[in-house]
Amino acid sequence: MEEALSGVKRTLYCGELREEHIGQRVTIMGWVQKQRNKGSLIFLDIRDRKGVVQAVLSQDQATEETFEKASRIRSEYVVAVTGIVKARDGGVNEKLATGGVEVEVQELKILSQAKTPPFQILDEVEVRDELRLKYRYLDLRRPRLQKNLLLRHQVAQSIRNFLNQENFLEIETPMLIKSTPEGARDYLVPSRVHPGEFYALPQSPQMYKQLLMISGFDRYYQIVRCFRDEDLRADRQPEFTQVDMEMSFVEEDDVMDVNERMLAHVFRESAGWEIQLPLPRITWQEAMDRFGSDKPDMRFGMEITDISEVVSHCGFQVFESAVADGGSVRGITAPGCAGMPRKQIDALGEIAKLFKAKGLAWIAFLEDGSVKSPIAKFLTDETVAAIGSAMGAKKGDLCLLCADRNPVVWSVLGNLRLEMGRRLGLTDPEKHAFVWVTDFPMFEYNEEEGRYTAMHHPFTMPREEDLVYLESAPHKVRAKAYDIVLNGVEIGGGSIRIHQRDVQERIFKALGFTMEEAANRFGFFMEAFTYGAPPHGGLAYGFDRLIMLMSGEDSIRDVIAFPKVKDASCLMSGAPDKVDVQQLDELHLAIEQEKTE
Amino acid sequence: MEEALSGVKRTLYCGELREEHIGQRVTIMGWVQKQRNKGSLIFLDIRDRKGVVQAVLSQDQATEETFEKASRIRSEYVVAVTGIVKARDGGVNEKLATGGVEVEVQELKILSQAKTPPFQILDEVEVRDELRLKYRYLDLRRPRLQKNLLLRHQVAQSIRNFLNQENFLEIETPMLIKSTPEGARDYLVPSRVHPGEFYALPQSPQMYKQLLMISGFDRYYQIVRCFRDEDLRADRQPEFTQVDMEMSFVEEDDVMDVNERMLAHVFRESAGWEIQLPLPRITWQEAMDRFGSDKPDMRFGMEITDISEVVSHCGFQVFESAVADGGSVRGITAPGCAGMPRKQIDALGEIAKLFKAKGLAWIAFLEDGSVKSPIAKFLTDETVAAIGSAMGAKKGDLCLLCADRNPVVWSVLGNLRLEMGRRLGLTDPEKHAFVWVTDFPMFEYNEEEGRYTAMHHPFTMPREEDLVYLESAPHKVRAKAYDIVLNGVEIGGGSIRIHQRDVQERIFKALGFTMEEAANRFGFFMEAFTYGAPPHGGLAYGFDRLIMLMSGEDSIRDVIAFPKVKDASCLMSGAPDKVDVQQLDELHLAIEQEKTE
Repeated sequence: MEEALSGVKRTLYCGELREEHIGQRVTIMGWVQKQRNKGSLIFLDIRDRKGVVQAVLSQDQATEETFEKASRIRSEYVVAVTGIVKARDGGVNEKLATGGVEVEVQELKILSQAKTPPFQILDEVEVRDELRLKYRYLDLRRPRLQKNLLLRHQVAQSIRNFLNQENFLEIETPMLIKSTPEGARDYLVPSRVHPGEFYALPQSPQMYKQLLMISGFDRYYQIVRCFRDEDLRADRQPEFTQVDMEMSFVEEDDVMDVNERMLAHVFRESAGWEIQLPLPRITWQEAMDRFGSDKPDMRFGMEITDISEVVSHCGFQVFESAVADGGSVRGITAPGCAGMPRKQIDALGEIAKLFKAKGLAWIAFLEDGSVKSPIAKFLTDETVAAIGSAMGAKKGDLCLLCADRNPVVWSVLGNLRLEMGRRLGLTDPEKHAFVWVTDFPMFEYNEEEGRYTAMHHPFTMPREEDLVYLESAPHKVRAKAYDIVLNGVEIGGGSIRIHQRDVQERIFKALGFTMEEAANRFGFFMEAFTYGAPPHGGLAYGFDRLIMLMSGEDSIRDVIAFPKVKDASCLMSGAPDKVDVQQLDELHLAIEQEKTE
Repeated sequence: MEEALSGVKRTLYCGELREEHIGQRVTIMGWVQKQRNKGSLIFLDIRDRKGVVQAVLSQDQATEETFEKASRIRSEYVVAVTGIVKARDGGVNEKLATGGVEVEVQELKILSQAKTPPFQILDEVEVRDELRLKYRYLDLRRPRLQKNLLLRHQVAQSIRNFLNQENFLEIETPMLIKSTPEGARDYLVPSRVHPGEFYALPQSPQMYKQLLMISGFDRYYQIVRCFRDEDLRADRQPEFTQVDMEMSFVEEDDVMDVNERMLAHVFRESAGWEIQLPLPRITWQEAMDRFGSDKPDMRFGMEITDISEVVSHCGFQVFESAVADGGSVRGITAPGCAGMPRKQIDALGEIAKLFKAKGLAWIAFLEDGSVKSPIAKFLTDETVAAIGSAMGAKKGDLCLLCADRNPVVWSVLGNLRLEMGRRLGLTDPEKHAFVWVTDFPMFEYNEEEGRYTAMHHPFTMPREEDLVYLESAPHKVRAKAYDIVLNGVEIGGGSIRIHQRDVQERIFKALGFTMEEAANRFGFFMEAFTYGAPPHGGLAYGFDRLIMLMSGEDSIRDVIAFPKVKDASCLMSGAPDKVDVQQLDELHLAIEQEKTE
């Protein structure tokens, strides 16, 4: 039933056929998207990576055997067809790039039969995710996923071409490394040769790329798989791909310069976007103050206003105490939203609570000059007017206010700003607002662990002028770190690194390591600094997320060939899975049954 | 003591300085290869990725502070130097590409100090491997290793450029997969979310690339890390890199054609070799018969002659019974070696025994027409003459003979041929003899396991005409498999794959799997064949070995940035290592103490 190729060669792709091929004898191969039997005519829509073309057999012209064979073909059969390209008999099909032509079949081979697939191979068909992922190899036949992986391929090449021209070398770093968890959990790999010992899979090639700088490779990059054993969110995968780079003899400006030129190059080549350089930069402090986020969506304004001074003695206890306690009162002004129904405003209050606000205050400046506000009764008319004036509120506008500790205020207003931006249609997908966020705090205090943790990572260089605070006031130390943000999404981040052993030791101390712990984990790395280490810095992009943004998808699953689901399993292969006892014995491992139950 | 860059920018690399730059003010940065203090002059040889250049300070011209700073500089200090390029005062140094110039230092920064390194950063210095590998980041500063990794980078780009033009897409496949060991041991990765279950790291992306073909991606490639938990030999690493590719709608010729064009392209671009296409092809059977190896070194002849017929009734029991038992008597003729001292011939006999020969027979046809041979006494003069004639031996030649089962005969003579080739200087490193070896046996019998195993892998397509032997005489089945061999080293191998579920099931049966085992391990994969699978095939190269051959190195360690040693450990970082109990608890794992002792 199924036939071998036996020397038959494809002459071009299905999706490449055009009017210019009319009269040529061609051989195409692909999947039958649809077979239509119209009595004396049989139509086959044949699909390959480049598109779909119609083939046709007529009972008069085809041999009986060929016609009979064609009549048996079902969707997703794989066929090879040889025939003459003709102008399409039934008129041009405008929906297809190949719509002006069809192939009049002379020879036909069924290369592979197909059962009825569990779902139709069409972008517009609704299928539950679980089924799609179980039959990922079928879902990947959809034009949209094909297009996404083609884009991914193109962007990878475009990145490499740019970096190659800029004197970067692609160097592979190890995957079986020493476990030095700081931040996320490592995936571990038991060693058979060294029972009881483990490798870790890299969360990033951080130390290795720094060692490459110490080795004098000067400029390094890699498009590299990384691993984090974390509880998965919708946009996370246990294994993910980074575009990772590092440069020697540079300061922040140098890294940002080459990277923004790379972004302009790649987005122009692969997405057709024209990006104006240099990209804007704002400090972390400014980003928090103006947008309530370290990854501000700069496609629209609606910036945050600090009204702490206006209300610090307003008589309203909630406002006054927030300011008195070292926090603040701030707000955003949603233009034209004064008439928003109470129910919707309450819904905004619920969002605010998600981000730890005790409540959301609001003032609607109605068109008729009156004011509607649940807190108006606590404020004088003058204060209300002063708030409106400070916040640039005009008649018809709605002010949303939050009084709390600064981190809560930022988070609440940053998220409300995004919500209002979306509702007001300000998050235009055609706009591409890149921004560098710089001068991140070096540390953030982790309440749970009762210690400072590194906001980027412990190898980040503090600003020289802040080094004096390392021991006395770590929260004041700013890092030479920078994130690149596109439309409110962080697509990459990096820093100038520490290249001095003594500074690195002080950082580990500030992070609560004993010198012994630091030496155990990072000793070999810190020693490297003592043999001549150049100043260096770099950056890493989340490649999956970058492609997701470029392709306009909502999930990184749609830009990864074989993704995993939330519990880190693969619905197609069943990984992870039990293994043979013998395999565990060789590793000297036992599964702790009591804990698994 | 150490200074920051503070805005100083490098204007070009040390190694780039030439006469054309004379008169220019430049800033270079790098490592001090050597500091020479000649009283009123201080010379600094400064090294970066592109080479070494001399900088000079004179006491008259430099400020006191700068001169003093320079006097403190030691080897491997990292410096930034700004100055004027001059013609070299002491005359041209022909050994350096920059030897016509020097930089007269005006400004000098010490960016990083360096302790005395544990060994000198020079290619020609003898250092034990352990020390080099512990301080890999220092060893990597050597020009030779720098050159190797640069070559590796260039070859990777060259491969990608070629494949991109040939319509291949680079697609990433998962690293955390299901364990389906067949052949080598898998590295396992315990799952935290699914206690008692494991991922495996891929030995190759085999099933995934085949699924990509079933998904319609048509042409795939990847330069990808793979893992094998095997006892290491000198040229193996637990993690290694493959150039992996797969094509749909192809037969063997198509895969070989695109690959030999790729090789010609890459070797021309990166090594300057001109490779004549098409490459020669021989079948596995012919390779064994003529060269006693499935990876024949075709740079020289000295082919094997089968003299079984000549000696089948010669009266010498050893020869007669070898033939009668289904084995053979074969030999090679080493030209001009008749006078080889007995001691050396005995050494050859030892080599033969390493490869399981019971002994090595030999006949020396001396220049004076006489014959010297320990077996002459068992043979008639006519038989000796007939052997000499069959083997094309002339006066002065030495015939080495082996009588045994065919696999032993091939292995013994194949290895003696290589040994004699080396001794006679026939393995010219300037010659590049590529050859395709085709039609491998599908199976080889594994005495230990008492079953057939797949010679390539179980997804390899048998020749259609041999399918009838699958159940009755598996050893007769030839596979659509091909290896590409360069100068006696296998650099890549591949095959046309099975794309029919029934054939795949028959192969698993022949390999001794129950249908249940096969379904457990490969069920999802075999099911994919039932939804329309195109004929497909591919090939994979050992990238490390390829670069080793191109760079002329003897060890793959020298072409890998951070290699592991024989016990799969990393001498630099100490991986693998013990991990925190808490990490194991989270994985529900215990180390079996009694087994580790």
